[in-house]
Amino acid sequence: MTMNPSTLGTDVPQVTARAKVLGRAQYAGDLKVAGMLHAKVLRSPYPHARIVSVDTAAARALPGVLAVLTGADAPRAMWGVHHKERRILAEGVVRFCGEEVAAVAATSEEIARDALDLIAIEYEELPAILTPEEALDEDAPGIHPGRNNISHEIKFQRGDVDAGMAAADLVYEAHYTTHAQYPGYLEPMGSVAAIDPDGRLEVWTSTHSASLARVRLAAALELPISRVRVHQATTGGGFGGKMVEDANNLIAGLLAVKTGRPVRLVNNRLEDFLAAPSSVPEQITLKLGMTRDGLIVAKEVRIIADCGAYSGLAAEVMHVSAMRSDNMHRNANVRSHATLVYTHTPVHGAFRGFGGTQMQFALNSHIHSMAEKLGLDPVDIHKRNAIGAGETSIHGWEIGSTGLKECIDQCTSAIGWEAKRTRAKDTGAKRRGVGMACAMHVSGNRTIGNWDGSTVVVKINEDGRVYIHSGEADVGQGAMTMLSQVVAHELTIPLSHTYVVPPDTDTSPSAIGALASRITIAAGNAAIVAARSARDKLLALAASELKAEVDQLELAEGSVRVKAEPTRQASIAQLARLHIWRHGGEGIQVSGSWDAKTKMHDDQVYGNIAPAYSFAAQAVEVEVDIQTGQVSVLDSFVSDDCGKALNPMAIHGQTNGATVQAIGWTLYEHLQLEGGRITNADFADYTMAMADAVPMLRGGLVESMDPNGPYGAKGASETAILPGAPAIANAVYEAIGVRIRDLPITPEKILAALRQQQEVQHA
Amino acid sequence: MTMNPSTLGTDVPQVTARAKVLGRAQYAGDLKVAGMLHAKVLRSPYPHARIVSVDTAAARALPGVLAVLTGADAPRAMWGVHHKERRILAEGVVRFCGEEVAAVAATSEEIARDALDLIAIEYEELPAILTPEEALDEDAPGIHPGRNNISHEIKFQRGDVDAGMAAADLVYEAHYTTHAQYPGYLEPMGSVAAIDPDGRLEVWTSTHSASLARVRLAAALELPISRVRVHQATTGGGFGGKMVEDANNLIAGLLAVKTGRPVRLVNNRLEDFLAAPSSVPEQITLKLGMTRDGLIVAKEVRIIADCGAYSGLAAEVMHVSAMRSDNMHRNANVRSHATLVYTHTPVHGAFRGFGGTQMQFALNSHIHSMAEKLGLDPVDIHKRNAIGAGETSIHGWEIGSTGLKECIDQCTSAIGWEAKRTRAKDTGAKRRGVGMACAMHVSGNRTIGNWDGSTVVVKINEDGRVYIHSGEADVGQGAMTMLSQVVAHELTIPLSHTYVVPPDTDTSPSAIGALASRITIAAGNAAIVAARSARDKLLALAASELKAEVDQLELAEGSVRVKAEPTRQASIAQLARLHIWRHGGEGIQVSGSWDAKTKMHDDQVYGNIAPAYSFAAQAVEVEVDIQTGQVSVLDSFVSDDCGKALNPMAIHGQTNGATVQAIGWTLYEHLQLEGGRITNADFADYTMAMADAVPMLRGGLVESMDPNGPYGAKGASETAILPGAPAIANAVYEAIGVRIRDLPITPEKILAALRQQQEVQHA
Repeated sequence: MTMNPSTLGTDVPQVTARAKVLGRAQYAGDLKVAGMLHAKVLRSPYPHARIVSVDTAAARALPGVLAVLTGADAPRAMWGVHHKERRILAEGVVRFCGEEVAAVAATSEEIARDALDLIAIEYEELPAILTPEEALDEDAPGIHPGRNNISHEIKFQRGDVDAGMAAADLVYEAHYTTHAQYPGYLEPMGSVAAIDPDGRLEVWTSTHSASLARVRLAAALELPISRVRVHQATTGGGFGGKMVEDANNLIAGLLAVKTGRPVRLVNNRLEDFLAAPSSVPEQITLKLGMTRDGLIVAKEVRIIADCGAYSGLAAEVMHVSAMRSDNMHRNANVRSHATLVYTHTPVHGAFRGFGGTQMQFALNSHIHSMAEKLGLDPVDIHKRNAIGAGETSIHGWEIGSTGLKECIDQCTSAIGWEAKRTRAKDTGAKRRGVGMACAMHVSGNRTIGNWDGSTVVVKINEDGRVYIHSGEADVGQGAMTMLSQVVAHELTIPLSHTYVVPPDTDTSPSAIGALASRITIAAGNAAIVAARSARDKLLALAASELKAEVDQLELAEGSVRVKAEPTRQASIAQLARLHIWRHGGEGIQVSGSWDAKTKMHDDQVYGNIAPAYSFAAQAVEVEVDIQTGQVSVLDSFVSDDCGKALNPMAIHGQTNGATVQAIGWTLYEHLQLEGGRITNADFADYTMAMADAVPMLRGGLVESMDPNGPYGAKGASETAILPGAPAIANAVYEAIGVRIRDLPITPEKILAALRQQQEVQHA
Repeated sequence: MTMNPSTLGTDVPQVTARAKVLGRAQYAGDLKVAGMLHAKVLRSPYPHARIVSVDTAAARALPGVLAVLTGADAPRAMWGVHHKERRILAEGVVRFCGEEVAAVAATSEEIARDALDLIAIEYEELPAILTPEEALDEDAPGIHPGRNNISHEIKFQRGDVDAGMAAADLVYEAHYTTHAQYPGYLEPMGSVAAIDPDGRLEVWTSTHSASLARVRLAAALELPISRVRVHQATTGGGFGGKMVEDANNLIAGLLAVKTGRPVRLVNNRLEDFLAAPSSVPEQITLKLGMTRDGLIVAKEVRIIADCGAYSGLAAEVMHVSAMRSDNMHRNANVRSHATLVYTHTPVHGAFRGFGGTQMQFALNSHIHSMAEKLGLDPVDIHKRNAIGAGETSIHGWEIGSTGLKECIDQCTSAIGWEAKRTRAKDTGAKRRGVGMACAMHVSGNRTIGNWDGSTVVVKINEDGRVYIHSGEADVGQGAMTMLSQVVAHELTIPLSHTYVVPPDTDTSPSAIGALASRITIAAGNAAIVAARSARDKLLALAASELKAEVDQLELAEGSVRVKAEPTRQASIAQLARLHIWRHGGEGIQVSGSWDAKTKMHDDQVYGNIAPAYSFAAQAVEVEVDIQTGQVSVLDSFVSDDCGKALNPMAIHGQTNGATVQAIGWTLYEHLQLEGGRITNADFADYTMAMADAVPMLRGGLVESMDPNGPYGAKGASETAILPGAPAIANAVYEAIGVRIRDLPITPEKILAALRQQQEVQHA
């Protein structure tokens, strides 16, 4: 007899790995459909212009061109998450450089590209509003008709901030600015759209959510939702950028509807830089009141966030910035005022961490600064203020588990915090320092239509192997592997005997998709429900076959057996066959649903929005070259409170990736805009962190065993990106005494700050 | 307010019609998959030969050829329904002319065809056994190793046949022979097979049953069943020929496994004639005992059936011939002995009517002859013997409903039976006569693994439109339309708001498929269960939304409303959205199963195998030209007891098609074999009935309202083919006094019989 083959808690290669490394996985760009056309998109060269005239005759006349569409051909419906304000193709006016103005479908990509050159569009360039300051000027014209440039505004307070500030021993205010980060996934956004034999629109797309993509396609193309079918193609990373903020699958869908032919639209990297939402740049003015022993007693924050020309998900991102970090602490007095502003710039929106990175940069930098002023170790301040398990946070979050203090201890110990903090300061050109930061994230979020649940269908085949149906997206983070692990564990079968059917809105259960680090907790729990329901069917049938009571039976090693007499048994395969082929039979194809027992925010942002909350802490050591301003990360250790690590290898993959993406954002990546135009829209000029910029990545897991998580697990794909930037900024401060509050931390800023420091010292 | 839009009982165009007439429907041959190879099959030119040597080197060397497979490359597993006796590609010996010997996959169909010519196979031709008589000769060598040439034998008796015969006033025995009919569907058999990104075999095929195709593919290719995925491609007719008796999708699958590439294998018409199972030729010796007033009191039948080289489903077909018609009558004394014999000829098997046509030809011809001898009207004999509703037949069939007598009255009245029987006989060259016949069929058959059930999943989309998932096959007969009608009726929505998802073994519920006229009764009932379960979910949610008790609510016109206050209502769309987007939500995607409360035959063929039994009667008028021997059908009226006609237009389509197929079998269609080789394997030489051979088709429905049927409905796709041949034979007899017992009724046989008649008269 073999051992129970459960893989829970062990390192498991992704179940999608084999198809990917063999080159068999079908990304949207790999799909080849008979009669498929190739699409290209013409984009605005101006950040703001009136479209005076459009002449597509020459493009349409080009042999091989099947369709040339402009705004006049697109549905009247507007699309967008928070505001319906965007047309599939611009009409009358363009609002950012890169906005989609026309689309061509042709028999080859080359012809489509050539046709773009033949589209004659006369623009009247108009003055562009490129910064939030200009946008908020009272005299500024509205970027969208009939309204000012404030896209969204959030104001709330809780407790008595003024009293808290008055009672504080130290009140400190500072201003932080954060910049946009391009998601930088390996696979640019792509879709293939076709008309199925029944005249329905069928789309294969790279997405965080086939379900949400379908909802949006239906609305934007003015189709009944059931007339749209979305398949999730293998998705090569998303990081928030493939949610519902880009127009790629809408344009492919529109071209398919207009031509009746399959249409492929896959961004090249330049196009992807122009079209993908980058993270939301925020200016944060943070004021904290603290007692002399480090207790935070009041917090006030003002945020000005820039959504670009269309709001997308930026309002929701800003909401997170405005309030999420409050829930880490016991402080009872907070006041927030956040303003989202339109500008004539490319769109910003969802990004891994979803507004957490911006605020955690400010908050952790701030705590470090105040610790120094109070003569305290920031570690002690974080631990002192940390909310505990069983507590309810200021905004109503019920903290079922937290391993934050353990994370802090683990990462600081790993980095040698005590010793390195107290060692003599370097005096040469290269100066080392250590920094740390903390963060929290959600595992799920009751934010869409008061449902944060998931449904999983388990189908047991006649060979005892199991198909798992879920609409939840594997964007590379490992959702399919998690589902396989859970079902295999519950049914005591090998992982190789499971197969996760990719999301397809015709057949998959309803699902929200890969956002808010929700899939492990929501779909993982649903998979348990479904698998146990399937197990109950196996047991009931085995009871009659083995002539035993159900409670005398157990499922083990892929068979149901009489506990007291294990040789009396029937395999899952036998039972699955018999479950069909008998009187009253039916296949074992059972559905399990799970929804979090959480509460949506009320209009005062009070509620318990997630079934569990994840925490992380990170400590880094940097070296700053004061002659060149170059910052190098020498060591990094990130500790992730993931509840229970179902697949440690996958979580380390997430934390390692998060660390690199955080290093990139902090030190290197910066979308350069000149006159509203992105000038570094390629990987040569947009410098993501390369191997030589990344230390040996280290990390550890803290298993706080959340009571709501499947086997105690929480989400583990976003938290670890949050503490990276402030940990580095704090370490830079420790190294050279310079506080950079304006990301990214470039050599120029370091050198300028060092000069200013010297001037102050010499003054 | 609109009326309840139910279409039950009204003429409804097939829901698949639009895709078909627009040319959008994807038959297997229409599929184009990137990188797809084209396959061709080399077939044996001999009915029996030893394969001495095989040399594929030249074929493999042809540029564009990816694979050349022979028996040595095929799995060791044997396949077949009744006996596992057939290799995917023959090895060592070939047993019929047309047997698959080698298969090629190449980059074009032309190259594949050319490669066939380069395969050098040396055969040693061996003596072929071409008739059952030769096969049954004691000295005949065994066609399959280690056994004689009897593939299957059935013997049973019930009651006391000898006593019955002794008590009869008239005992009459005669010998009938029936011939093979090619299924003659518009779409020849075809498949596309590919390897999916996970390395599984994925097959699109034209089939009666995706589920059974998958079971067979897995077994024959020695794969775990869950490593095979079968999609039902749009299927252009089956008539029994696309069950599991041909090797098409096995060969496509084998080539895909061996090449790792998608492979298309679509028969041309010649290949299809060689590969498809044609109906089972049977020699029937029938002896009936009858009282002077027409009561059948004993029956004895001997059948010699020819399955060709492999048994396929022929044993099951012969079983039906041997016993099914016994259940029409109250006669308590029967004895049957049926022998299925191998010959070195192309395979015979399942065909519309499944063994009923053969026996009903003999039985109805026989009754007509005996009626004449007794001076009775055959109509009276049929009515006198007809089993009634509520009775249990000799073999245990529980007759829940029968409209046989009404069918007899309806069709004879329509044809002008009385007047035409009694009119003066024609004396010119063209002589008219009327004939009639009766038949019964099953609606379902508990024959496979003691399950005859079905499962349907109903998924309500957020726009209130409904997807219907079933694994049951629409082979053109209208299964999808029936499912749409049932679900639309139950949910009070328009038919256009339903969509039936084509069968896909990854996602569809378990299903048996299109056989035994079972889908309306099995899947129709399952659809009712599923739809009502969905309705219950709507009602439960509406109760809380409308603040009413469930029993105060009704579902009508696409909304749930308070009966007493119909303006208090919520649409299905609203409720479907809310069913997801709420606390504890989940999509409405519910499964309903139904299994017939029937009993499998025991080994003495006793049981109640179907939940309902269908009946039909047909009357025809023919004109026989005694100078040419030509028989013309002047008029035909078939009456179909379908229980309840859910879609009269579809049933008339079935009865019309059945009548034409019966006319073809009776008068025109005949697979000509010379030395074991089919010599008329094309539509020019294999003469199906053309428009000028078919009268204005007439028919009527008899609604006997079966208690087990959905809304009273029974199966309606096979019964109507059964009475055609004997009705014509009887009418020919009435016209010219010549009894043809050897089908088909050709001019040559008519003229020969007339000559013999004259010789007798002159003797």
